[in-house]
Amino acid sequence: MSKRRAPFDDLSTGEVTLDAATSRYLCRVLRLEVGDELIAFDPKRALEADARIVRIDREVVVISVAALRDARVVAPRRVTLVQGLPKGEKCDAIVRDATELGATDIVFATTERSVVRLTGARAAERMMRWKKIADEAARQCGRGDAPTLSLASWSEAIDACDRDDARFVLHPHAVTPLAPHLLSVARQSHLGVAFAVGPEGGLTLAEVETAEKQGWCAVSFGQTVLRTETMTAAFLGALRAFGEALPASKDASPSLKDGR
Amino acid sequence: MSKRRAPFDDLSTGEVTLDAATSRYLCRVLRLEVGDELIAFDPKRALEADARIVRIDREVVVISVAALRDARVVAPRRVTLVQGLPKGEKCDAIVRDATELGATDIVFATTERSVVRLTGARAAERMMRWKKIADEAARQCGRGDAPTLSLASWSEAIDACDRDDARFVLHPHAVTPLAPHLLSVARQSHLGVAFAVGPEGGLTLAEVETAEKQGWCAVSFGQTVLRTETMTAAFLGALRAFGEALPASKDASPSLKDGR
Repeated sequence: MSKRRAPFDDLSTGEVTLDAATSRYLCRVLRLEVGDELIAFDPKRALEADARIVRIDREVVVISVAALRDARVVAPRRVTLVQGLPKGEKCDAIVRDATELGATDIVFATTERSVVRLTGARAAERMMRWKKIADEAARQCGRGDAPTLSLASWSEAIDACDRDDARFVLHPHAVTPLAPHLLSVARQSHLGVAFAVGPEGGLTLAEVETAEKQGWCAVSFGQTVLRTETMTAAFLGALRAFGEALPASKDASPSLKDGR
Repeated sequence: MSKRRAPFDDLSTGEVTLDAATSRYLCRVLRLEVGDELIAFDPKRALEADARIVRIDREVVVISVAALRDARVVAPRRVTLVQGLPKGEKCDAIVRDATELGATDIVFATTERSVVRLTGARAAERMMRWKKIADEAARQCGRGDAPTLSLASWSEAIDACDRDDARFVLHPHAVTPLAPHLLSVARQSHLGVAFAVGPEGGLTLAEVETAEKQGWCAVSFGQTVLRTETMTAAFLGALRAFGEALPASKDASPSLKDGR
């Protein structure tokens, strides 16, 4: 059986006394005991290290962490998801799926048809929740990194993505099919990819146009209309498969860098 | 706005008095009124027809159905999912995702690590529930057909798939990558595809071997381990993208028909 893995913020070498929540996590969720070895990883910095449990005193765990190294498995390219903010549990599922399937940055964007609005303490609480879900998904799926998480307005999110990335806004009525473009993108292994998906009620035409004006390419994916949470997994599954199936080239085809 | 769609079993032309559940569905979920037009579709037979609400008497709806025709949007090829039976809500999510993404047949297979066992009345109740979910997903996504649903043991399910289909059993430790095979399959637009996924706890090696002995190809999909419910959407997303991106050929390449 392969070693258990556990995520840590600010992982460092030496003896580390864990906080109550992490201690509980190791003892109760991962069922580790004194002497057990694990791989400790720092999802934010994409570092990992061999570690061992040296003491458990009244449910407080002390681990000994060996030298840090680059995490063995990380997302193979930068992939940003701009997700029109949907209702609560859908966000959780999307963070989980996107982490498993290699997203590096997730931006929840408030759109015109977003039912939920997140500000202040409620926003902070949700960000902490999503971070936990992403770290846990990274642990489960074997990634040594985890996506960054942020909240923005639609226009901020659209504007913030790197203009050199291949950027797609998914819309069921777009006439351009996604797949041929994605195929070309996948061949360029160092090209970043961004994709934007509306909330449950979809994007407005004005929101699609905002993205197009910034150089995003409006595309549709297949004959049937996918729910917002299905779209993420299907898109990332397609990108993964293209990346695996095709001979990679480092030449950027200019025809795609501007999203057309 | 495009016309509302509603699924019907045994759809026929003429005046049809709907049962209480369907009547409620049209009035309360789709919010239709007398005189409203809709597209009635029969997911099992992949037929559809224009229809109109002619009367609503004490919450019983009568519709007038025009001539039946082949459904406009149906799954482009036969795709069978053999899903190791997971826990309850996961099944619902998988039926929904697989319907949206074009599966034509879903077999829930009891495996060694399936926590749930379904027999008798409980099985019948779950099958009815899944049928409703599939019909509703077909309506939402715009498909005029819906996948067949069945329950079987692992070996029955593996054995029942057409031997001419390209058949993949997904396993994180398989050394053969899925994507190059799937690429080749996607080019053969009339070739059926079957894929088998374990439950939460995964397949046993014996189960993978059972499939391999029947000509299934054990494959892995990417560096990270996907949860069972993520795998379906990622696989079907990949197949959809390959199918859209590649020039189709009707020649079957024998190298893939036997799954190797």
